[in-house]
Amino acid sequence: MSNLVKAYAVQSPKGLLEPFTYEAAALAPHEVRVKVKYCGICHSDMSMINNEWGLSQYPLVPGHEVIGTVSEVGSDVTSHQVGEVVGIGWQSGSCAHCDYCNRGKQHLCSQERATIVYRHGGWAESLVVDASFAVHVPEALNIPEAAPLMCAGNTVFSPILHYGVKPNMNVAVVGIGGLGHLAVQFLSKWGCDVTAISSTHSKDDEARALGASHFIATKGTDELKKAANKFDFIISTVSADLPWADYIGALRPEGNLVIVGVPENTVNIPAFGLIEREKRVSGGRASSPVDIAAMLDFAARKGVKAVSEVYSLADVNAALARMKEGKVRYRAVLTVS
Amino acid sequence: MSNLVKAYAVQSPKGLLEPFTYEAAALAPHEVRVKVKYCGICHSDMSMINNEWGLSQYPLVPGHEVIGTVSEVGSDVTSHQVGEVVGIGWQSGSCAHCDYCNRGKQHLCSQERATIVYRHGGWAESLVVDASFAVHVPEALNIPEAAPLMCAGNTVFSPILHYGVKPNMNVAVVGIGGLGHLAVQFLSKWGCDVTAISSTHSKDDEARALGASHFIATKGTDELKKAANKFDFIISTVSADLPWADYIGALRPEGNLVIVGVPENTVNIPAFGLIEREKRVSGGRASSPVDIAAMLDFAARKGVKAVSEVYSLADVNAALARMKEGKVRYRAVLTVS
Repeated sequence: MSNLVKAYAVQSPKGLLEPFTYEAAALAPHEVRVKVKYCGICHSDMSMINNEWGLSQYPLVPGHEVIGTVSEVGSDVTSHQVGEVVGIGWQSGSCAHCDYCNRGKQHLCSQERATIVYRHGGWAESLVVDASFAVHVPEALNIPEAAPLMCAGNTVFSPILHYGVKPNMNVAVVGIGGLGHLAVQFLSKWGCDVTAISSTHSKDDEARALGASHFIATKGTDELKKAANKFDFIISTVSADLPWADYIGALRPEGNLVIVGVPENTVNIPAFGLIEREKRVSGGRASSPVDIAAMLDFAARKGVKAVSEVYSLADVNAALARMKEGKVRYRAVLTVS
Repeated sequence: MSNLVKAYAVQSPKGLLEPFTYEAAALAPHEVRVKVKYCGICHSDMSMINNEWGLSQYPLVPGHEVIGTVSEVGSDVTSHQVGEVVGIGWQSGSCAHCDYCNRGKQHLCSQERATIVYRHGGWAESLVVDASFAVHVPEALNIPEAAPLMCAGNTVFSPILHYGVKPNMNVAVVGIGGLGHLAVQFLSKWGCDVTAISSTHSKDDEARALGASHFIATKGTDELKKAANKFDFIISTVSADLPWADYIGALRPEGNLVIVGVPENTVNIPAFGLIEREKRVSGGRASSPVDIAAMLDFAARKGVKAVSEVYSLADVNAALARMKEGKVRYRAVLTVS
């Protein structure tokens, strides 16, 4: 194996992706090297390319929805074997010793290391991660359409696990995009009665094909207000300010509104709306390796995969341009090797 | 027993309480009549006196923190006996047949009937309630200081039960008043490490005597900001707009901010503050008869009672005046018979 890694990187904020080669790191004892087969394009890649969070270092190699094969294991690694198919998501390391790491909540570790922050990601021949964060991928998911599960899928599946969603619940998914179209599938396969919520009815048929039984369009309609007191669980995947009081109103007693998309402004909640019927507003996010493993097993067993547009890594700029225009249905995936 | 009930009522919004007599209702088959011994004064009584919620009918007999004895049982009632000591809180009836009633969540029933809304309450010789809402009171709590448990106590105990508070948690109580001084006691007796939070340090010693191990004063200090990432559970008992971002910051990962006091304006939450570490904001409130029974048993076993100022019913206006001035430490109770 060459010591050089061929990748695509941006050289400055908002730049185009260009071929880039860097010296491969030596493996630490607890790390594995993964040869990338497929890697999704996530909105967080765009945020890092544009340095929206002030965390970007250039040249920057994005990519944190990896499906690949283990090509080398560190001297202490007994959990992985060369050739094994694994997935890598938003996180690729943690302190490994705090309370949160010890109980399988590595995403809550204060030393959380992200795959593409101060490190090179998956739009490359290979990358290096802590062995714990290279999650075994079931054989059925060794396909491009599984790559988006690693971040988008994990982000919407984790709240289903963490917030006690049950198959007898009425649930709603706000936003039918990269995250939302996976949330509809997961919640439907989980057994729930799923309502898709979008600004217009343009995605009505597609949402039903993904597993939604009902559809609410919010723009210029009273359909959301009519859904008062209807849902046990609502997951908002959109990065927009919503009519929060209406969404609290749409919850049943003890219902939970989980926010995974970051809106522009603060979330303004009428307190009495929470108090009167014991409602909740919660944050959800991409979570830990055990949750990812559970998600992948569930996805493999139930046939959940991303509706994807597949591009070669060399066409990454075309894929990004289409994504910026909001035209990707519903997730772009790069084939790397 | 006379057919007339001697009570104290207001005749119009914001009026003084005056002696008032009304014809006792005949008991429906599922109801009990309760002879009042003690009745607390709650801020909700004041809200009803002033018609702040537009729900008040005059003459209005307030009072919904009752300790009394059953004096008559309806023809279908087999659960209660004449002479039994019972307590009555905010709620005195529900539909009895919906999903929520069927699973012991009567406070979430859409037909919830409040003790003092369209009915006469406990600042009176007696009142009539559905048998389910006359909760058995342990012998040790047949005292004036137990009356405030029926609403204030239930309001702060219910979130401890419903939101999974555990004895190994770090918790905080915002506002050391009628509700807060009971929350400090309950959480301390529950086994938690309790921090009291108030605007100044004036209640520091008293909060520690009630079970707090730490105290934070918020006014003109950085003590709250210094408590970042500290609490698994925060209960806010105050009716004020708080620096919500700081309180979200004070939660540990997966921590829960429970609001039981209604602030004037909407609660403005930074979404990323919830998302990054899976934090939650929840509503809490006075809950159901089974929760009240659990609360009373716990209070009796652990010695929780309200620090109270006791007045005769005839002195109710003096007690209310003192309460309006914010001087009551921490709850006023009326002795009725």
